[in-house]
Amino acid sequence: MPMVSVAVAGCTGYAGGELLRLLLSHPEVEVGALTAGSSAGRRLGALQPHLGPLADRVVQESTPEVLAGHDVVFLALPHGTSAAIAAALPEDCLVVDCGADFRLADPADWQQFYGTEHAGTWPYGLPELPGQREVLAGARRIAVPGCYPTSATLALAPAVAAGLVDGRDVVVVAASGPSGAGKSLKPHLLGSELMGSASAYGVGGVHRHVPEIRQNLRTLGADDPTLSFTPVLVPMSRGILSTCSAPLQPGVDAERARAAYTEALADEPFVTLLPEGQWPQTQSVLGSNTVHLQVAVDAAAGRLVVVVALDNLTKGTAGGAVQSMNLALGLPETLGLPLVGVAP
Amino acid sequence: MPMVSVAVAGCTGYAGGELLRLLLSHPEVEVGALTAGSSAGRRLGALQPHLGPLADRVVQESTPEVLAGHDVVFLALPHGTSAAIAAALPEDCLVVDCGADFRLADPADWQQFYGTEHAGTWPYGLPELPGQREVLAGARRIAVPGCYPTSATLALAPAVAAGLVDGRDVVVVAASGPSGAGKSLKPHLLGSELMGSASAYGVGGVHRHVPEIRQNLRTLGADDPTLSFTPVLVPMSRGILSTCSAPLQPGVDAERARAAYTEALADEPFVTLLPEGQWPQTQSVLGSNTVHLQVAVDAAAGRLVVVVALDNLTKGTAGGAVQSMNLALGLPETLGLPLVGVAP
Amino acid sequence: MPMVSVAVAGCTGYAGGELLRLLLSHPEVEVGALTAGSSAGRRLGALQPHLGPLADRVVQESTPEVLAGHDVVFLALPHGTSAAIAAALPEDCLVVDCGADFRLADPADWQQFYGTEHAGTWPYGLPELPGQREVLAGARRIAVPGCYPTSATLALAPAVAAGLVDGRDVVVVAASGPSGAGKSLKPHLLGSELMGSASAYGVGGVHRHVPEIRQNLRTLGADDPTLSFTPVLVPMSRGILSTCSAPLQPGVDAERARAAYTEALADEPFVTLLPEGQWPQTQSVLGSNTVHLQVAVDAAAGRLVVVVALDNLTKGTAGGAVQSMNLALGLPETLGLPLVGVAP
Amino acid sequence: MPMVSVAVAGCTGYAGGELLRLLLSHPEVEVGALTAGSSAGRRLGALQPHLGPLADRVVQESTPEVLAGHDVVFLALPHGTSAAIAAALPEDCLVVDCGADFRLADPADWQQFYGTEHAGTWPYGLPELPGQREVLAGARRIAVPGCYPTSATLALAPAVAAGLVDGRDVVVVAASGPSGAGKSLKPHLLGSELMGSASAYGVGGVHRHVPEIRQNLRTLGADDPTLSFTPVLVPMSRGILSTCSAPLQPGVDAERARAAYTEALADEPFVTLLPEGQWPQTQSVLGSNTVHLQVAVDAAAGRLVVVVALDNLTKGTAGGAVQSMNLALGLPETLGLPLVGVAP
Repeated sequence: MPMVSVAVAGCTGYAGGELLRLLLSHPEVEVGALTAGSSAGRRLGALQPHLGPLADRVVQESTPEVLAGHDVVFLALPHGTSAAIAAALPEDCLVVDCGADFRLADPADWQQFYGTEHAGTWPYGLPELPGQREVLAGARRIAVPGCYPTSATLALAPAVAAGLVDGRDVVVVAASGPSGAGKSLKPHLLGSELMGSASAYGVGGVHRHVPEIRQNLRTLGADDPTLSFTPVLVPMSRGILSTCSAPLQPGVDAERARAAYTEALADEPFVTLLPEGQWPQTQSVLGSNTVHLQVAVDAAAGRLVVVVALDNLTKGTAGGAVQSMNLALGLPETLGLPLVGVAP
Repeated sequence: MPMVSVAVAGCTGYAGGELLRLLLSHPEVEVGALTAGSSAGRRLGALQPHLGPLADRVVQESTPEVLAGHDVVFLALPHGTSAAIAAALPEDCLVVDCGADFRLADPADWQQFYGTEHAGTWPYGLPELPGQREVLAGARRIAVPGCYPTSATLALAPAVAAGLVDGRDVVVVAASGPSGAGKSLKPHLLGSELMGSASAYGVGGVHRHVPEIRQNLRTLGADDPTLSFTPVLVPMSRGILSTCSAPLQPGVDAERARAAYTEALADEPFVTLLPEGQWPQTQSVLGSNTVHLQVAVDAAAGRLVVVVALDNLTKGTAGGAVQSMNLALGLPETLGLPLVGVAP
Repeated sequence: MPMVSVAVAGCTGYAGGELLRLLLSHPEVEVGALTAGSSAGRRLGALQPHLGPLADRVVQESTPEVLAGHDVVFLALPHGTSAAIAAALPEDCLVVDCGADFRLADPADWQQFYGTEHAGTWPYGLPELPGQREVLAGARRIAVPGCYPTSATLALAPAVAAGLVDGRDVVVVAASGPSGAGKSLKPHLLGSELMGSASAYGVGGVHRHVPEIRQNLRTLGADDPTLSFTPVLVPMSRGILSTCSAPLQPGVDAERARAAYTEALADEPFVTLLPEGQWPQTQSVLGSNTVHLQVAVDAAAGRLVVVVALDNLTKGTAGGAVQSMNLALGLPETLGLPLVGVAP
Repeated sequence: MPMVSVAVAGCTGYAGGELLRLLLSHPEVEVGALTAGSSAGRRLGALQPHLGPLADRVVQESTPEVLAGHDVVFLALPHGTSAAIAAALPEDCLVVDCGADFRLADPADWQQFYGTEHAGTWPYGLPELPGQREVLAGARRIAVPGCYPTSATLALAPAVAAGLVDGRDVVVVAASGPSGAGKSLKPHLLGSELMGSASAYGVGGVHRHVPEIRQNLRTLGADDPTLSFTPVLVPMSRGILSTCSAPLQPGVDAERARAAYTEALADEPFVTLLPEGQWPQTQSVLGSNTVHLQVAVDAAAGRLVVVVALDNLTKGTAGGAVQSMNLALGLPETLGLPLVGVAP
């Protein structure tokens, strides 16, 4: 089988850089065009110094002409810019969008949280959702989930599916590093502001990942999910640690909860339920496509609590994207994806 | 008025060090005996190099003989060791215990979470609780609250008092640095483990601060508070950022919530409700006795969300202790306490 | 004596914020006008959330009209902008410039490293230089030293003065946080870039602080100082740890070196030689005007090695500025300046 | 060819963990016995949670019996403990020691810096030294260099070899994270002490890596190298950024220096001279076996300055060890070693 030729649009950002880090060690991939907006014409090495093997590549413009002619095109672009490019690419080209444009099924959700016209809905690149591997097999358009929704959905999926919780009154507080916000030059993303400090943002139901998480809970079988979601910026470049809880359904105890998670995750290659007593830490999964989670039943509080750790740039973005690409192309799902975190 | 003579037992730990940092700039205090356990006999400068003015002091043993003869004795000792020392100190000596021993009113709570015999209950050093300033005025035994309970209680007090929430199904997720755990030589507190990583611990209702927070919610008027509490270690030495939420009582909207917080905090010298749209960050209160909080009504989720930032060693421990000392001695409550954080 | 009225131009940056943090606890100062450029008209609390007592102040424009009428005006402005404002302020107004414009004595140095016309030379605000306290007493124009030059000069001053070294072949490598670079929105100052990473910049003699350090070495008596200076960005908001070395003059041993430092620093209120065996750490001086240093004689290498720790925003900028203000106004040199660092 | 069976003694520490991370993705390696001291009998997953594929392995005791029978044994043990184990292993078993025991050629150096009897000298695992690849080919005992010596030697090798400097008066200041110090439970390695702080240690020629760096400079042709070496702990788990300088030999200018480095590094797979104007940052090489360096000629200071970045656990320890293993076994030198850093 010939190598899969892959282009990356938005190669100068953090998501684009992580895609290239992973693609460089993917045994079936050949890295093709690298494109961006204002950085077109520059050496990639000046912008992504860690990508040594590609240092002398020159960044091209993100036009359909440059991107066409590849088997796969990854889009790591600002929200709202993918649709035009995707429309100009051939139907048999696999387009994997790391942005938000095609994640939401309900145009009203899009309108409420993004304020523009809805571009459409693509197959959702979270293979761990029930039946989703079949959906992704052979797909030619894939919307990669947001990093927070990946964490919250993987944390709660076994619980909703097994009826441990019903998806109502879910509370998610997610500690994350700033790389998920990209290389934007905003004052609150400066190192001086972030180091030694924790801060909340997008509080009170206004974060754009709220409708995506609720959509996933519905996919899992929750009739009318409600969600309080608070992201917290903490001083680390990468990683998300989400603490997710929801009211216990009657009769759920620790044993039943653990059994449900054990069973649900038994065959998942990237999602690991840690042994009892061991709690997730983001360091353990840094740079890998692995997700660590742990579950507790707090009988006094009447809540199931699930803590989940993942790398927002790997499983939360670029790793998840490559995982979905593998499925779409009929390659082994885990091909080229690191399982072991860079710790300490 | 003569200066207040103050001894600090446990002067070599983080809480003891922070007490001394604050006491050194307190205009009415004279620092007396400095005591500890295994470090007795050493220069303080070798153990607390930031305390320059006390560098040449020699650490003494933590015995009642050494500690007696001061107007105030601060105890910053491991849990379970305060009672014996306090019993040997004169009744008119103000003893301020930064440990847990005398915080809980219910011996059953103590027994369940600490597993030893309950030492007793002292006036609780959180002046912001209703009527508590009167309790503390003239007190000669004070139990300083835990750092997490300080954050959660201050966050929720106006809401419970005003009936915005009823104290049931409270969820608190608190991001914190490791200094609250003291200088213990434990593997998970090593810098290599903590830097670049976030991790949860004490999940599922087992953290010792759970009964203390519930006790405070009852003090505030909640009949039967329930609490899911998850502490999260993040890579910063100091600071707590707690995200607290609870189901909204019927009819509560953003306006009413904001009005309740504005009114409740109008005269509080150390607790600030930030202007709308501005969210707390721990950096802003680092090294100060100030608490920043912000409140949101998430109507879709049916929850009130309060985010609060404080310095676990200052307002969360040593600053709160000095504030209570001021009240007990009839000094101005804010005397000697910094209001401005060391940012960035 | 009436309070000293003080204005701060550039109140929205890191240096301006630190000036205000210190001035708010200075017992003889009344904070007057707060001015800035593009942020004029905004609430200070939105820009400097840690400055609670000034949160409701509105930032004014940095014009001479607004700044005039104060006893003291601090300028915390971009390089090249101080001269015009200073020229328009009364001669009896004390102007303290935290920028570089008036630091260098030699116009050729200025021209080489800044590329514009030299604005002039003001009394240099480093009281620890020989005779400098007399120069600063009564001064009405003061140029605050750069943060790196403060660290290197304080480290080497006793050695040059005592002839332990002759100022030739000095090597300084300084690890620093990014707050010294201000709130500039530059990619390399983003938190994602800085956290978990160390990087060098301005290598090879091109950093603008090189001529200032050499000037100070000449002031200390070095005939023809040569200097290799390398700044290294490390992941902490504040602090400089400089490792300074120079060839030992004949006959210098550890005892003589230590004696020279002990004697030179005996009466310095802010510069502390640590006991033998104890090495500086920036945490110990965080937020304080204190400097910690230690000296070693490496006989095999033939070099004197001095390590120095200070807070770049406090002693390195704003604290040094207030210290010089105190001297200029005839106030006690240490008035209002913290001696104890915020550790851990 | 059958897989190479590999055992790791000291699998619970940071070096051992990094060895296993790399070995797990090495295509020719099969991970055999995992041994340690006090942790024998425990699940590896409880001690190294990032090593998911080995989580259920049980740690065995570090005895020759357990280790024998493998093609390769890596020793990641405390200094002074390797000799006894190595002596008991077959001569045709490749033993790669990550400790210091067999690095130094001169017993007097060992005696002076370690204070015990010298165990001997093994082939030195730094393939980039002239002729060293030939030495390592077929070797059955290899001493892995220290992390600081790897950085300083790679930085200076082209300069010494080309006569840009003569190895006298070398000054190295190296900023590093604490993982190089291992999982030792020492107070100064606690996260609360390290985060937000920089500190120096082992100053003045007393660090144990001094004789090793000098030995390497002699190997490179320096007659009588002298070295001032200062390690600086900074708040990041991994990474070393070393700033190395030495007096320029007559006639050396920037062009000649750059040419010497370009030529010397042209065929090195892991050492990259960055383009002019671009300076190394540790983030770019995090988790990879890549080394980034940059060179400057500071004519005014009369020094060549080289800045080098590497990951202390990868190229500085475990990656270097695997690279040497590859050479010893006749495998491609780069096999299984990551080239791309985990940035940001």
